[in-house]
Amino acid sequence: MGQEFLKIMDPDDVDKIILNLPFKKNVEKIPLEESYQRVLSEDVHATINLPPFKRAAMDGYAVMSKDTFMASEDKPTSLKLLEVVMAGQIPEMKVEEGTCIEVSTGSPIPDGADAVIMIEYTEKKDENILILESVPLGANITMEGSDVKKGELLLSRCELITPDKIGVLSAIGMIEVPVFTQPKVAVISTGNEIIKHDEKLEYGKIYDINSYTISNAVKSCGCIPIHSEIAKDDYESLKNKINEFKDADIIITSGGTSAGAGDVLRLVLDELGEVLVHGIAVKPGKPTIIGLINMDGEKKIIFGLPGYPVSALMIFNVFIAPFLRKIASLSLEDREMKFTRLKLSRRYIPARGRQQYVLVKIEEGKVHPILKDSGAISSLADADGYFKVAKNVEILEEGSEVDVFSLKM
Amino acid sequence: MGQEFLKIMDPDDVDKIILNLPFKKNVEKIPLEESYQRVLSEDVHATINLPPFKRAAMDGYAVMSKDTFMASEDKPTSLKLLEVVMAGQIPEMKVEEGTCIEVSTGSPIPDGADAVIMIEYTEKKDENILILESVPLGANITMEGSDVKKGELLLSRCELITPDKIGVLSAIGMIEVPVFTQPKVAVISTGNEIIKHDEKLEYGKIYDINSYTISNAVKSCGCIPIHSEIAKDDYESLKNKINEFKDADIIITSGGTSAGAGDVLRLVLDELGEVLVHGIAVKPGKPTIIGLINMDGEKKIIFGLPGYPVSALMIFNVFIAPFLRKIASLSLEDREMKFTRLKLSRRYIPARGRQQYVLVKIEEGKVHPILKDSGAISSLADADGYFKVAKNVEILEEGSEVDVFSLKM
Repeated sequence: MGQEFLKIMDPDDVDKIILNLPFKKNVEKIPLEESYQRVLSEDVHATINLPPFKRAAMDGYAVMSKDTFMASEDKPTSLKLLEVVMAGQIPEMKVEEGTCIEVSTGSPIPDGADAVIMIEYTEKKDENILILESVPLGANITMEGSDVKKGELLLSRCELITPDKIGVLSAIGMIEVPVFTQPKVAVISTGNEIIKHDEKLEYGKIYDINSYTISNAVKSCGCIPIHSEIAKDDYESLKNKINEFKDADIIITSGGTSAGAGDVLRLVLDELGEVLVHGIAVKPGKPTIIGLINMDGEKKIIFGLPGYPVSALMIFNVFIAPFLRKIASLSLEDREMKFTRLKLSRRYIPARGRQQYVLVKIEEGKVHPILKDSGAISSLADADGYFKVAKNVEILEEGSEVDVFSLKM
Repeated sequence: MGQEFLKIMDPDDVDKIILNLPFKKNVEKIPLEESYQRVLSEDVHATINLPPFKRAAMDGYAVMSKDTFMASEDKPTSLKLLEVVMAGQIPEMKVEEGTCIEVSTGSPIPDGADAVIMIEYTEKKDENILILESVPLGANITMEGSDVKKGELLLSRCELITPDKIGVLSAIGMIEVPVFTQPKVAVISTGNEIIKHDEKLEYGKIYDINSYTISNAVKSCGCIPIHSEIAKDDYESLKNKINEFKDADIIITSGGTSAGAGDVLRLVLDELGEVLVHGIAVKPGKPTIIGLINMDGEKKIIFGLPGYPVSALMIFNVFIAPFLRKIASLSLEDREMKFTRLKLSRRYIPARGRQQYVLVKIEEGKVHPILKDSGAISSLADADGYFKVAKNVEILEEGSEVDVFSLKM
């Protein structure tokens, strides 16, 4: 049982390794109703013209424009009203010289008509309509396909499906939407002292935290958490649990703090796959493992997070979340973690020699570093976000500006 | 059938009316597993101490600190190893003078011990442990309740439940979480020309757009969309549909463009409730209605959006989304619409006399206004966001800075 790390790596090198992890994207078709916040896996072309027919853009009367050329308020032109066509109805008559058909916004334009005069510029008189103004050819008519032509590119592969884009898909009557499959992430808390919430808290035990924290953080990355479970902190238990999760695309373990769980995972990886990272020069979160496991002829990615809840969440946010967002096909823009530049409320002296992640509370627009160890739950309760400190920084004076990444995800 | 509005209102006055709309918040208890992105309806106090017992903060040996006072690498102190206690196990022995017990991070501290010496500063020799350094009283021991004391306030009412806060709730073994109920919003598209996606697109008909757009936009506000349906554009149909939706907290209708749907809704409200707003001095979206309907002794809020998809979405975003976020108990910070300040790629001349909302595409960090009417689906396909123009602005020169609100919600 070794306590030593294989090789402590710089976070930049770890980022490069993560960037090159093997992952095959899958696609699926889902109902439009379920497509919110999913990502298109294909370009979407218009399957119909929009609008699909020549229609009225205003409430009014469909006319032959030449009939209105001499019309004015003083000398209105009188046209015979043939019928009334509401939106959704089909005109039965044809507009001919000296006649008109009443239409409302969205009504098909009757044959023969080449303009719509707005209702405001007309007066009704018995069976006739008095036209008080001339209308140019094509006025208030939206031509078939003038908005979108059949075959035109509407949305591109990799676009995030937001409410407005759902509007576009529904406009062409799309029922099933081609999207990238959401990666499935199995989350395992390891540790003999860890129990589920429905168990009685006996002396020496603690309630599971990380499988809840990480499962929900996984959701914020466009992935689906599965199998949030607890494994005993020994070689056989962890190996068996990992082997159970054949349906997971990614496995994330955390803890157990006893007997160096990192080492247990390392032993499992040494036998079933390979260790790519074991130890990162960061604080908190140094004892992090990244590896590949051979399963059914494929290489499955495993992240082994530290056991302390703050460490686990920080390593997840800094290293794993960007990767999950990438494999979930979220665009660079969606993938970027949002931050706010704010001033420190007090001097802060970071740890030497390691990149550091500092939980903070924001009050009155100022950043208050939370000075507790990474086992502290109270720091999670207080935290609004965190900032990063490069490894060579010796001191951050009060009032220094830091980029605070939000934990609201 | 009147086409005129009751009274065109300034958007600021409409905001004030919306702010004062009556809404009663409800609460419920849900499983911790389902609490992600919900909002706490009660303060949460710790029900246990954290940690729940005195535990080791490091892998090492639990000792009586005074036994180590003379220890050094040159002259190690030898202590008899009594037993090994892993995390999750209960010590059976008691540490006495001249003895020690092996513990790992998270193990309970055995009786008699008052410090833990890290494994790095020891050597194993037969049944004994050589102590190479002295440890002060309390070293590497985390006291019961030192992180959180039973009864202490952990999280406050109205806090958004993010992954880190779920970690806090799971640390105290919370099974059910008190949260505000998510308001239910019924969404109705009105219009005789509108059909569902599973119907055949016959001449004169168009596919429903707004019920999809608005239902999904409702999700982004922490509310639950229900009954996305189509109503015929007449008094009886709309009235019946509204009366069906007794389980909805809020009703949002949109369109139909024919025969002034706003007027149909106004007539329904005149009979069953009251009209608070009919017409807003904005572009697009002027024909918007806000009203209250009396239903089972309560006043239910109804928003009537214009029928054109761009208008409907803009009015939703600008006026309704902040209100829904408020009644969904999202905090001011969560409620705020995110915007980015960017420069216009070209001169823009806004409409006079009305506040205007302009859809834009962002390319190379510049804002390109989309110059299409609000019936255009292609503008929704291209749009990344929108900016607002105050009603008295006559011209925005190329390079002017505008605040672009994202449509990625």
